[in-house]
Amino acid sequence: MQSVYDTIAIVGPGLIGASLGMAVRRRGLASRVIGIGRRLTSLDEAMRVGALDECTLDLEEGLREADLVMLATPISAIARLTPQVAGALKGGAVLTDVASTKQSVIQTITGALAGRKDVCYVPTHPMAGSEQRSAAHACAALFEGSVCIFTPPPDAPEPAVTDLRALWEAVGARVHVMCPAEHDRLVARISHLPHLAAAAMLEIITTDEGAFAGGGLLDTTRVAGGDPALWRDICGTNAEEVALALQAYVEVLQRLRDLIRRGRFDEVQSLLQDAKTRRDDLLALRGPGRTGTDNQ
Amino acid sequence: MQSVYDTIAIVGPGLIGASLGMAVRRRGLASRVIGIGRRLTSLDEAMRVGALDECTLDLEEGLREADLVMLATPISAIARLTPQVAGALKGGAVLTDVASTKQSVIQTITGALAGRKDVCYVPTHPMAGSEQRSAAHACAALFEGSVCIFTPPPDAPEPAVTDLRALWEAVGARVHVMCPAEHDRLVARISHLPHLAAAAMLEIITTDEGAFAGGGLLDTTRVAGGDPALWRDICGTNAEEVALALQAYVEVLQRLRDLIRRGRFDEVQSLLQDAKTRRDDLLALRGPGRTGTDNQ
Repeated sequence: MQSVYDTIAIVGPGLIGASLGMAVRRRGLASRVIGIGRRLTSLDEAMRVGALDECTLDLEEGLREADLVMLATPISAIARLTPQVAGALKGGAVLTDVASTKQSVIQTITGALAGRKDVCYVPTHPMAGSEQRSAAHACAALFEGSVCIFTPPPDAPEPAVTDLRALWEAVGARVHVMCPAEHDRLVARISHLPHLAAAAMLEIITTDEGAFAGGGLLDTTRVAGGDPALWRDICGTNAEEVALALQAYVEVLQRLRDLIRRGRFDEVQSLLQDAKTRRDDLLALRGPGRTGTDNQ
Repeated sequence: MQSVYDTIAIVGPGLIGASLGMAVRRRGLASRVIGIGRRLTSLDEAMRVGALDECTLDLEEGLREADLVMLATPISAIARLTPQVAGALKGGAVLTDVASTKQSVIQTITGALAGRKDVCYVPTHPMAGSEQRSAAHACAALFEGSVCIFTPPPDAPEPAVTDLRALWEAVGARVHVMCPAEHDRLVARISHLPHLAAAAMLEIITTDEGAFAGGGLLDTTRVAGGDPALWRDICGTNAEEVALALQAYVEVLQRLRDLIRRGRFDEVQSLLQDAKTRRDDLLALRGPGRTGTDNQ
């Protein structure tokens, strides 16, 4: 792929931003990747892993020449940063974000961009990452074989979407377009629910009890190692769908509990068989060689 | 360690039995390991991985000279096999089992041994394994760093318990003694609950939805790849504790759902922080180099 963007600016180059920076630089997908952050130590880390050509603590300086600006900060920082970002974007720039929830974030960013008809905004959510957050864990291959969801507004200019799609595909992602509401419902079920379910399980198992466990419990609860503040933001910006997913999950657990109490073990086995079949299907979809990295 | 047993017979050498056979033979912990099974293909597999010195389809022949007899079949086979095992044990032999639930299994085996005052029975549960069941996945190192729970009856002869403990310690396990009721409550929470929780999650996520997921969902649901028939037995022989664990889990999930619905995100974050701390503690207990294998 030819370089689509001359300069890419990544605001908040943590695990996702720095991994994209590494992948872009290794493949020569831009002439320059600039990292913008609030702490020098984080930027140094991103420089050290090879994610950036340059870095700066000055948002306006970092954005001045950027053709593509990626907001890769935690969700809570987006509302705070967006007004300043909106003012500093150069004419014709494309703004994108990689937040794990979309409807609320899109509302925030779209609102801030109201006066900037000369820029456009393409919201995305790369379904890759891990319970680690920092650039120190970044990896150029992070997006290979993963899915990147795009939720562009109906009036997004086609070339802006096409160019950004080309970038994500060039780093190994499959791009799926859906509407923001559909996205938020999907991730509440396949990503936010597993996180909360893992946390809830740890809430009832003491460390003394857990010390007896095999690897099963550690695997089941791995996602609960994620940053609580980040997950607070995710719950806060997708509360309705997350609550619905929890409710659906609770109903299945209650059904299982009742079947077990009533001694209806044929039905228990049938439910377990369904689950195993579905998981085998998911594993087959993923294919061999795709190692486990977590969705945010 | 010196060889404590001359002849060990393993009835049903699948993942657990064959792994023990491999570990015993590599360390010279017995003169002879005999595998007893119902299907030649399974026994051949256990022979091929080096778990056995000999094998037979004839239970009585296999038990004739055994000093230690380990029942390593699925739980459902124990009730069927035990009367014949009880009749065929040689005088002075020690019988043990490795079933994942204890109270019900102990009742079955103890009942069948009522007429055999010349043998003794030491129930155990090695907390190791994986969602795989067959001897083809056996591994001599399976028990290294794991816990093996002993639930001996109050009248078990001390030497029988001590010898069996020495065997398990020699293959790398830490032995913990507890009463059967305490065991069943513990495993309902740290092992059976994670399995059912994983299955329940797959029940509400379609394959189409799951195709978008990162590794988090696959990790969270890994244990649901286990054999449904085996898990049916586990639920069936530990129904009360499993139902209680499910109920406790449901209550935490409902609390989380309500906090999210009411916008009480400080409390959500605090719960997530608790969970993360507990998981970090569990990881630290486990220590580096202990790779994830599942508990049954």
